[in-house]
Amino acid sequence: MSELMQPLVWHNTKLRMLDQTQLPHREVWLELAGYRDVAGAIRDMRVRGAPAIGVAAAYGMALGAVASRAGSIADFKREMADISKTLAGTRPTARNLFAALERMQAVAERADNMAVAARSLVDEAIAIHEEQKAADYRLADIGASLIKPDSTILTHCNTGPLATAGGGTALGVIIRAYEQGKVKGVIATETRPLFQGARLTAWELKQAGIPFKLITDSMAGYVMSKGLISAVIVGADRIAANGDTANKIGTYTLSVLAQESGLPFYVAAPVSTIDDSIATGNEIVIEERSLDEVTCIGEARVAVDGVEAMNPAFDITPAKYITAIITEQGIKTS
Amino acid sequence: MSELMQPLVWHNTKLRMLDQTQLPHREVWLELAGYRDVAGAIRDMRVRGAPAIGVAAAYGMALGAVASRAGSIADFKREMADISKTLAGTRPTARNLFAALERMQAVAERADNMAVAARSLVDEAIAIHEEQKAADYRLADIGASLIKPDSTILTHCNTGPLATAGGGTALGVIIRAYEQGKVKGVIATETRPLFQGARLTAWELKQAGIPFKLITDSMAGYVMSKGLISAVIVGADRIAANGDTANKIGTYTLSVLAQESGLPFYVAAPVSTIDDSIATGNEIVIEERSLDEVTCIGEARVAVDGVEAMNPAFDITPAKYITAIITEQGIKTS
Repeated sequence: MSELMQPLVWHNTKLRMLDQTQLPHREVWLELAGYRDVAGAIRDMRVRGAPAIGVAAAYGMALGAVASRAGSIADFKREMADISKTLAGTRPTARNLFAALERMQAVAERADNMAVAARSLVDEAIAIHEEQKAADYRLADIGASLIKPDSTILTHCNTGPLATAGGGTALGVIIRAYEQGKVKGVIATETRPLFQGARLTAWELKQAGIPFKLITDSMAGYVMSKGLISAVIVGADRIAANGDTANKIGTYTLSVLAQESGLPFYVAAPVSTIDDSIATGNEIVIEERSLDEVTCIGEARVAVDGVEAMNPAFDITPAKYITAIITEQGIKTS
Repeated sequence: MSELMQPLVWHNTKLRMLDQTQLPHREVWLELAGYRDVAGAIRDMRVRGAPAIGVAAAYGMALGAVASRAGSIADFKREMADISKTLAGTRPTARNLFAALERMQAVAERADNMAVAARSLVDEAIAIHEEQKAADYRLADIGASLIKPDSTILTHCNTGPLATAGGGTALGVIIRAYEQGKVKGVIATETRPLFQGARLTAWELKQAGIPFKLITDSMAGYVMSKGLISAVIVGADRIAANGDTANKIGTYTLSVLAQESGLPFYVAAPVSTIDDSIATGNEIVIEERSLDEVTCIGEARVAVDGVEAMNPAFDITPAKYITAIITEQGIKTS
């Protein structure tokens, strides 16, 4: 799978990061030499997507370790704990962020020799990144096995390498199936309100050289009813024990439309997304985001001043609409 | 029903027109004194919505008649025929435009006295406008009878007074039911790609003082599945003999979602929208509009350069998803 789309590259004890806030119009690479730079970049969403945020934070800890001037192992551990706290305070919800920091922190705690402590944190960050890639590629291979020849796949939001710093989830499956010659083309929804499909997925599909067309979210029913689609594949933010799936707003609609047109509807997500402590989707709290995302486009106001709006960031797709959940450990059908 | 939202007002032998290209940010009233001004305003979409375009064109003929310096009845008729041709050349598809011009032209042809000819054209234009209002209000009354108390109605695109120069179609039903105390609130979809819901419907609902919330098209499934909606009402561009309905892209999706949530799905349209020469929706050709509407927002490009897109302007909702079609002549259930 092409390295072109990798948003995070560890090089010469620095973290190179593709600034996603500049996409798709400019491909700006940041060279981050300190953990504060990494924390700022996560906070400003220059890197986004839960797995990619986790990998970036791990590298942030590594940068902090490399730059450390601590005089003793005890000081070093205290410094690492402070750095971890700074990085943990950047974004509130991505569980990958906290999981990665805990792993890095555990390595710091085990350090007993200043000569190799920094190196062990760098190695751990690289390992976290490599594991992410390996899991993504396994998921992509497993998912691609479900795709039939000559398929046109519809996808929603952004679930590619940019989001995971690896191979991606739903878009990773599509890219792998395309490499296997089974995908004729992709239909990507623009994904209002934040246009992740138009901005990021379209950019990634272009990088990957996969033929695709962009549609507004309102056109998904049209393309399915016209027989232009073979399957729908989306990612997931959280999956309940019964298979109910929280994902980007609009996903539920796509699942209902797919059922109506007799199309398979796949969810692709790492096993870490499955939360067995939650019995059903009813228990998942839906984040309401700023109404400006709906009433304004960038700096421009679309609706009249003072208009009320709703802005649920995701919706719940009941398991009954999901043909299969694809993970790096296998396929789960409900 | 409030006159505040009327986009066309005949006053002192001039046509006052609310410039819809400036909405919702500025309420600019144009005072048009000649038929060329009216033709320009129609072409520039300062007035839009098929019925409103028809009424505007009729007033354009009236303005031309008032300003005529023809020396004979024969010259007057020739002049009126030229004016009609100019007005007919402004927009290609709105059938109301041609129907209104034919009516005006017939009055001009019957004229035999220069002293009263202009007056008869003014009277005919006013009659066309009044008939539009009367038909809209009948439709609104009939439709409102279907609305249950304490309803929250979801609607799509713009179907209010701005679009018909009368009471509106789907939004007219909602306004009437609100006046009858049966509507708690409205959910309006923004209606990508051109944001008619965010720009125009939101403006009209605010004028009417009806509580509402704006959503992206992708949130419709969420609000229906959450039980936040009592019914869906939309307009129509064309209705086939079997009830299949062409309307703004995204309408089909709303109908499938409504069925899935067990909600009534109503189409409100004048009988002139029903085309008995078309057996089913399969025969309706779907207009593909400029891809820039999808890839750009105003002057700003959202997607990366060179991205391919689709832009079907409307979709077909099969009759089986439509609970009832509301017209000014009654309710038709399939």
